[in-house]
Amino acid sequence: MVDKVTACIVIIGNEILSGRTQDSNLNFLATELNKLGIQVGEARVIPDIETVIIDTINYARNTYDYVFTTGGIGPTHDDITSACVAKALGYDFARNPEAVAMLESHYKPEDLNEARLRMADTPVGAILIENPISKAPGFQIENVFVLAGVPRIAQALFDNLKNRLTGGITVLSKTVSTDLGEGIIADPLASLQEKFPHIDMGSYPYFKDGRLGVSMVLRHHDETSLQECEQALKEMVETLGGNIIFSL
Amino acid sequence: MVDKVTACIVIIGNEILSGRTQDSNLNFLATELNKLGIQVGEARVIPDIETVIIDTINYARNTYDYVFTTGGIGPTHDDITSACVAKALGYDFARNPEAVAMLESHYKPEDLNEARLRMADTPVGAILIENPISKAPGFQIENVFVLAGVPRIAQALFDNLKNRLTGGITVLSKTVSTDLGEGIIADPLASLQEKFPHIDMGSYPYFKDGRLGVSMVLRHHDETSLQECEQALKEMVETLGGNIIFSL
Repeated sequence: MVDKVTACIVIIGNEILSGRTQDSNLNFLATELNKLGIQVGEARVIPDIETVIIDTINYARNTYDYVFTTGGIGPTHDDITSACVAKALGYDFARNPEAVAMLESHYKPEDLNEARLRMADTPVGAILIENPISKAPGFQIENVFVLAGVPRIAQALFDNLKNRLTGGITVLSKTVSTDLGEGIIADPLASLQEKFPHIDMGSYPYFKDGRLGVSMVLRHHDETSLQECEQALKEMVETLGGNIIFSL
Repeated sequence: MVDKVTACIVIIGNEILSGRTQDSNLNFLATELNKLGIQVGEARVIPDIETVIIDTINYARNTYDYVFTTGGIGPTHDDITSACVAKALGYDFARNPEAVAMLESHYKPEDLNEARLRMADTPVGAILIENPISKAPGFQIENVFVLAGVPRIAQALFDNLKNRLTGGITVLSKTVSTDLGEGIIADPLASLQEKFPHIDMGSYPYFKDGRLGVSMVLRHHDETSLQECEQALKEMVETLGGNIIFSL
């Protein structure tokens, strides 16, 4: 098994950068990819500008094992992602007969106008990803997976592509949440990190019910190491006189 | 007035990339900056890795008028943002007496340990940003603003820095939402875009109550042009036999 498999997520859309829309695709994809043993190394949120999309796709596909894009594959004039992906990878861009058939199964002939047919344009050689909701497919070309921006559709497309992905070692995690301040746990936690250098330790303060709490997260691929470290972490909290609010 | 003022948002934290945490700082900052006439050109979500943070900060500050970072300024060993910003910009990194005074006003002397004091370390010459919630300040150095990751704290810091920002022309927007399919509005909308080339037109499908709807968003700095275009857009929807679900 390959040790580490990585991905980059490219969120395409002016609506995210203007604040109009709260993105939720990054969180969904990151969670699902993590379960499959694929680590998201980076995410970029970029505007609907051709040169930016092309440069970002080329950077991402050359740097990471997998690239997932969301947004910009609808029928309107601002939907330029598919054409940009074709340009970035150097493929011709043409109407895909299989995609046309998918649209034909959904729309009455009189409703399948030229705008809708444009949703069947893909890089030549792309492997389609079936869309059970609105039928217009996503697609894969080399290591780039092109998904819709609407979260329900992006999620359905991901379900239909995930059997094409090969993950590496799955990173497991343990969380221990405490009412101790971050400043109290900081030095003991740094010592614990030195004792368990192979474990990725993060400390995440949060604000809830008017009080700050801290979740300490341990991440590693080996369950036994992780349990040993979790035990030591719980003992650390106890020694410091703190309460464990939850652990999972 | 400067025509266009731009910003890059850099979200720093493994917890966002692992899917553990749903980011909300990008949406908050994008919305607030937009109100001030500052357009977010790009956002990057990056891990807690020194070289990545340094490279990203340097790219962002040389490309955009303003940079806002969130995350990684707490007292634990994984909080490396402040030191990385100092390195990226070539400043010494040292304990800031003014920041120490802020912490002293909040913590009892016996609680102000070395870990907490590390939250007072900033690039030398940084201008602090007051934190009314947990006192550890954010800071500004040149065009880079360094904020906490906890959303409530990031928001409070932003409130305390926004009078330092100089916006350009404020981009206004009008939204018209319809029950027509995107495929129906696509070609007429493209014609409207040709008629109003100066207006930024986006079309955003959404899924609600089991049905797809579309919000068409018009963005421009001039209210009169925008109203004229909105009127034409509403007439377009009417001509196509659609209903306007809402407009704002």
